[in-house]
Amino acid sequence: VNTTIINQLCINTATFGWNRSLIDALNALANSGVKHITPWRHQIQHVGPEIANAMIRDAGLSVSALCRGGMFTYEDKKSYTLAIDDNLRAIDEAAIIGAKSLTLVVGGLPSNSKNLKHAHEQITSGIAKILPHARQAGITLAIEPLHPMFAADRSCINSLTHANDLCDLLGEGVGIALDVYHVWWDPRLSEEIIRAGEKRIVGFHICDWLVPTSDLLLDRGMMGDGVIDIPAIRVMLEKVGYTGLHEVEIFSEKNWWQRSPKEILQHSIERHHTHV
Amino acid sequence: VNTTIINQLCINTATFGWNRSLIDALNALANSGVKHITPWRHQIQHVGPEIANAMIRDAGLSVSALCRGGMFTYEDKKSYTLAIDDNLRAIDEAAIIGAKSLTLVVGGLPSNSKNLKHAHEQITSGIAKILPHARQAGITLAIEPLHPMFAADRSCINSLTHANDLCDLLGEGVGIALDVYHVWWDPRLSEEIIRAGEKRIVGFHICDWLVPTSDLLLDRGMMGDGVIDIPAIRVMLEKVGYTGLHEVEIFSEKNWWQRSPKEILQHSIERHHTHV
Repeated sequence: VNTTIINQLCINTATFGWNRSLIDALNALANSGVKHITPWRHQIQHVGPEIANAMIRDAGLSVSALCRGGMFTYEDKKSYTLAIDDNLRAIDEAAIIGAKSLTLVVGGLPSNSKNLKHAHEQITSGIAKILPHARQAGITLAIEPLHPMFAADRSCINSLTHANDLCDLLGEGVGIALDVYHVWWDPRLSEEIIRAGEKRIVGFHICDWLVPTSDLLLDRGMMGDGVIDIPAIRVMLEKVGYTGLHEVEIFSEKNWWQRSPKEILQHSIERHHTHV
Repeated sequence: VNTTIINQLCINTATFGWNRSLIDALNALANSGVKHITPWRHQIQHVGPEIANAMIRDAGLSVSALCRGGMFTYEDKKSYTLAIDDNLRAIDEAAIIGAKSLTLVVGGLPSNSKNLKHAHEQITSGIAKILPHARQAGITLAIEPLHPMFAADRSCINSLTHANDLCDLLGEGVGIALDVYHVWWDPRLSEEIIRAGEKRIVGFHICDWLVPTSDLLLDRGMMGDGVIDIPAIRVMLEKVGYTGLHEVEIFSEKNWWQRSPKEILQHSIERHHTHV
């Protein structure tokens, strides 16, 4: 395995399956050559962030991001306030485990609402509310634009254009996690990557779009098994100076999640080498 | 039933199910008060366009659009040429049945290609090639931007912005069919409707986005059962002067297609009245 290439590889632990623990992920990564991990909050909370941090350091790994904060969209004030509080805790957890950023999946339409504009406003003010705390903690808030098919139930920030608009508005301390799965179709992708620039892009997530796709959420492909020109997007990023990590994040209920973490990791390493 | 309202209603025959014939659709529509139909090509070809035209006139209906042309994206020249020829025939069929427009689903990535830009070029030159014939026949070519989740396999024109760009480029005789299902999530929707203007919008398709959505293609909802603010989009269109039809187009394998055309139609009429 090419050492220079594997040094850029990061594994988002969801790639091993929703139900895997942090220890499952660390066991899989042991002696693999992969040096970077993005864990999910439930895994960190399960052992507590201080112990999680020690476990990750003992494994010789560094944390890229914590996955995830966000979900700011609620019709009732109480839920909205709870969401803000929860995001403040997520920032603390991210800081304790040494993450550089907190990935934000910002929320879709609140239940019983059809008002996209109001959801957008809640998202903007939600991020603005947690931003001072994030700046103080040294954690970048990484808005992840999600594919438009998630506008109703996960995120109504659905393009890099919209994420850039938000970054312009919110200023220092807000960045973007760019996942090829969500943005590959967008004819504005190249110019919006230039607009974002190296400083704003804090994550590059990789997987592939399968044809056919059998499930909106849980049928992502391994790099090379789908139609996304991942190297072309990598080159767009490198042209603006991006030298950060390549984070494998694959939700695949019927295929990859049926395999062992070791096997999934082996394929991720190989495909990262050949198809990114 | 409010006569003024039902006069704007049009039924896309796919709403009754893929396997229904033209006669099934006409039987359902008989004495319903609905005056407009958008049939699919296979239904027209099954009886031949001249007979189809006579059948539709005898039923007292007028044809809005023929569904569909497009699918211009192929890696090999021969398939591309065949696609152009087939679109020329579709224009002829549309003219024979008295359609005002031919709905274009333009095609996604060709098999074994990851080159979106090349697909976009094929689409542009494909429409340009059939445009003189369409102008002569008096048939507007209605580009239908499809939801980004269809970029790989059906259409890589995935926003009203992109469709407007193409219309700017191609000029007279090219319009847009706007389906709420494909565009509701887009924060640019309102300004791009203004940019399109009344003249360019030749179709307004209605259905709803269900939460959750169980299938990318065949799980559309009846108006009112999902999260799309359809009246808000109708108002955007009316503000630029749109007075055209409201075309119900619902692909629903597990719900509506399990019911009789009469029952589907009854619900479509009611929901059009209450939720559009």
